[in-house]
Amino acid sequence: MKIIETIQAIRKEVKQAKKEDKSIGFVPTMGYLHEGHLSLISEARKKHDLVIISIFVNPLQFGPNEDFERYPRDFERDERLARKAGADVIFYPSVTEMYPKETPMTIRVTKGVDVLCGASRPGHFDGVATVVMKLFQLVQPDEAFFGQKDAQQVAIIMNMVETFDIPVTIVACPTIREEDGLAKSSRNVYLTEDEREEAPFLYETLQYGVKLIRSGEYNRQTVIHKMLAKLEGGSGTVDYLDIFLYPSLEKVEELSGQIILAIAYQYKHARLIDNLIMKVDQ
Amino acid sequence: MKIIETIQAIRKEVKQAKKEDKSIGFVPTMGYLHEGHLSLISEARKKHDLVIISIFVNPLQFGPNEDFERYPRDFERDERLARKAGADVIFYPSVTEMYPKETPMTIRVTKGVDVLCGASRPGHFDGVATVVMKLFQLVQPDEAFFGQKDAQQVAIIMNMVETFDIPVTIVACPTIREEDGLAKSSRNVYLTEDEREEAPFLYETLQYGVKLIRSGEYNRQTVIHKMLAKLEGGSGTVDYLDIFLYPSLEKVEELSGQIILAIAYQYKHARLIDNLIMKVDQ
Repeated sequence: MKIIETIQAIRKEVKQAKKEDKSIGFVPTMGYLHEGHLSLISEARKKHDLVIISIFVNPLQFGPNEDFERYPRDFERDERLARKAGADVIFYPSVTEMYPKETPMTIRVTKGVDVLCGASRPGHFDGVATVVMKLFQLVQPDEAFFGQKDAQQVAIIMNMVETFDIPVTIVACPTIREEDGLAKSSRNVYLTEDEREEAPFLYETLQYGVKLIRSGEYNRQTVIHKMLAKLEGGSGTVDYLDIFLYPSLEKVEELSGQIILAIAYQYKHARLIDNLIMKVDQ
Repeated sequence: MKIIETIQAIRKEVKQAKKEDKSIGFVPTMGYLHEGHLSLISEARKKHDLVIISIFVNPLQFGPNEDFERYPRDFERDERLARKAGADVIFYPSVTEMYPKETPMTIRVTKGVDVLCGASRPGHFDGVATVVMKLFQLVQPDEAFFGQKDAQQVAIIMNMVETFDIPVTIVACPTIREEDGLAKSSRNVYLTEDEREEAPFLYETLQYGVKLIRSGEYNRQTVIHKMLAKLEGGSGTVDYLDIFLYPSLEKVEELSGQIILAIAYQYKHARLIDNLIMKVDQ
């Protein structure tokens, strides 16, 4: 497995692979890999000749009061895990390699961005779209693999690929969970012991919402209120709990079609997100 | 020469060319070709195996009161001229092919955009960058050719390629002029006979500015004032006349380094632009 740190070297690697007519599977990450990431790497490994992952904590997608500085990093561990999962290349650029100067333009997301995580993280998805655009141009993958856990991110990247006609296919992979249901996340390390014990109630609340809808409750407000009641008494605070059409992220009061139930929950040092996507056939 | 009207077909054409290891030269245009465009096509022909030009009047880069509807169009003539100049493919998509629905995001240019044409055409360069990004993703050229006449456009596209690491080289070609010095432009057809006769004074004014600077006048304001005096009594109005560093488009009061002298002049039915780029070695 190669570690590549410069733009020049990754371009060379990609050019050679294209010349040899190898297909490229790409898994962009911010590192601190967990089983969710590893499942993406395994999936890419099954389908492609060359598997490239990127590890880059992207400052552009963090707000001024967010956790860019203290986002967990452990490259040696990531290297070991990525190798084991079948990666051929880790692209591991520095911030100055990716952003040698102030960027004179960004991707500006204007739709599906004022809801869910976008509402409380202004500019976050502009930063995500901008770095993913750069990575796609550098790696030129046939397919790129993302976790469905970051559902809004997946929706926006699918929109980006469509909007700019980028020649890549986006593959969304299922959320990987701990045995008690908690969605795997690099930020789970921030949880206190008590928070960690409580946190699976987020997934339980999502499952409860799905059950409500399956049993015939199609009113968005009612489902949300009943779900919120489940979270009362938790030791953190609800950042959002909402239901939208997916992937358009449009609002509907009477639930039907493909929808997402999504939660963000703020603990003392960790903001956790989770979601379930379901089809409603009224 | 092929005429290709769909995204699916241009992707197929490009894929085949890549497979055969052909280099691709690309000339994006809005049609109504003049010798400026043809010089770009000839340049691409000299250097590349496959020469693709696009003809697309991009609604995204026209303001609500601008000339999108009446922008001159003559596809049959364009086809004849492009073939003669050596194009292999004209990519000629409809507006609904390029924008099947409202775009949920755009490229947002934040630097070098509040001056020159950007100042009076808000959103114009966002529209240019967005469509050029799409075209680059579809055509995947090795080199793309632009006229230096649209100097701010060239600067912004160079910035875009750098910002997003797009694997393409931008080639800026010299402005092609009529015998009397007027820069060739598709919009020249809008000029009345009197305006057409007067219009070369724009280029003369630029040349006068260069002469002033060469003779030791390095004060930006002074050069601009003297140039403006040359345009007094003209039958149109000066939209801007300014001097900036190029391609950064930063302002300097004491002229030095590579600079651009640029004019936009509004006639009754045509807004003309022209510029000269020079090196100042004080």
